Amino acid sequence: MSVPLTAGNTRVKEARKLSRRSVRTERRLFLADGPKAVEGAARLPGCVVEVFVTPTARAAYADVLVAVEQVTVVDDRAMASLSDSVSPAGLVAVCRHLDVPLETVTAGRPQLLVICADIRDPGNAGNVIRTADAAGADAVILAGRSVDIYNPKTVRASVGSVFHMPLALVPDPAAAVAAVRDAGCAVLAADGAGEVDLFEADLRGPTGWLFGNEAWGLPGHLASLADHRVSIPIHGRAESLNLATAAAVCLYTSAASQRR
Amino acid sequence: MSVPLTAGNTRVKEARKLSRRSVRTERRLFLADGPKAVEGAARLPGCVVEVFVTPTARAAYADVLVAVEQVTVVDDRAMASLSDSVSPAGLVAVCRHLDVPLETVTAGRPQLLVICADIRDPGNAGNVIRTADAAGADAVILAGRSVDIYNPKTVRASVGSVFHMPLALVPDPAAAVAAVRDAGCAVLAADGAGEVDLFEADLRGPTGWLFGNEAWGLPGHLASLADHRVSIPIHGRAESLNLATAAAVCLYTSAASQRR
Repeated sequence: MSVPLTAGNTRVKEARKLSRRSVRTERRLFLADGPKAVEGAARLPGCVVEVFVTPTARAAYADVLVAVEQVTVVDDRAMASLSDSVSPAGLVAVCRHLDVPLETVTAGRPQLLVICADIRDPGNAGNVIRTADAAGADAVILAGRSVDIYNPKTVRASVGSVFHMPLALVPDPAAAVAAVRDAGCAVLAADGAGEVDLFEADLRGPTGWLFGNEAWGLPGHLASLADHRVSIPIHGRAESLNLATAAAVCLYTSAASQRR
Repeated sequence: MSVPLTAGNTRVKEARKLSRRSVRTERRLFLADGPKAVEGAARLPGCVVEVFVTPTARAAYADVLVAVEQVTVVDDRAMASLSDSVSPAGLVAVCRHLDVPLETVTAGRPQLLVICADIRDPGNAGNVIRTADAAGADAVILAGRSVDIYNPKTVRASVGSVFHMPLALVPDPAAAVAAVRDAGCAVLAADGAGEVDLFEADLRGPTGWLFGNEAWGLPGHLASLADHRVSIPIHGRAESLNLATAAAVCLYTSAASQRR
């Protein structure tokens, strides 16, 4: 067995640069950290370029690594330099970007789509992708100035779902709304001030949900592009719901209506 | 106007000790950080002992402070030592503990109760309390070895809802389940392996939801105490849902059924 590479090794240093968004975007590569993420990446043909692993993790996660062609053993310090986790599990994959063109997402009669406009918190973005996956959505569109879906926190919070869900990145939220409507979906904006109560809405048809920023919600000009603005009723004294929480309630209510 | 107190002042130092759980528990006091939290606390009679504020924040949040008897002006360094926020808003309240006896929570025919058993993440706990508030739940019971609800992260994630919702702390989860059932509620355990599909369950009657730890869920012996074990259907390839997300879907589905 070869000697583990150290943090100063050129390949380790090059991989470490993927912690920067600009480098990720330029190289169209990102890091997937931990066994869940590496397993998800390894199941996706053509996704994994290389997996860095500590000797201990190589033995512990042999089942995950069996599908990986290029496995590189590194020491604990090198692993710590690649992982953004406080206690690294010992394996990090260099992965190719996953996003697909908007046309791919809107082809083939989608039933349930998610558009996130200007979502900024990496954990929220990952959690929304995970929830969309669980609710059976066809795809998630990250629109506007949204967080980088290849941020390690987003990848981690998605618990593998970034590798399951078709993801599209669209700079202009209005273009995303138009494309989703053209695909045959009613576009519903989640809006605390919306005129339709979620639980009184007819959600049986193909639907595209539009969610706004976690702090300031959907700006009026975007909300007005939707076919309806839908509010989750607040029965108590809370002012609002967390974005990922609100998305979960909307998506599961939609999924239940469509499948009834 | 008096000179702002510094970080070395005895009262500031004593308040700062409330960042430790042991001191919070012993004194039955905690810190509420930021305008939302201080406003929530100030509206609750008898809750606020004292508010520490920077000169700038005193001017900016005069409307919040008008209801507070004891306002103490401190300098920016003293504020930074009291706040656990990276960018403190400039006001922190010393508050009396809010939790009520379990008997208070189960009195008066509750319709929707939440039991969290061994919930460990402070942000998750706060988010569940906020969601329970929004969904119109009557109270949240933190059972077993759950996170301290007076943790600053929990208070912040609740966005004021710790001041709205009756909260009970119960060391023994089984005792909480028994009390909720005695109050006339069907106890439903949220369990990924549950035998009842959430969207096929009859949720019209009074209900107590039982949620487990974010990592390992509900242990079998606790799940078996519930009347039914209810699963949220996973339509896609996600393995599970985030705890706060799952709680939101369960509580809103219950609330919608009860109010239909």
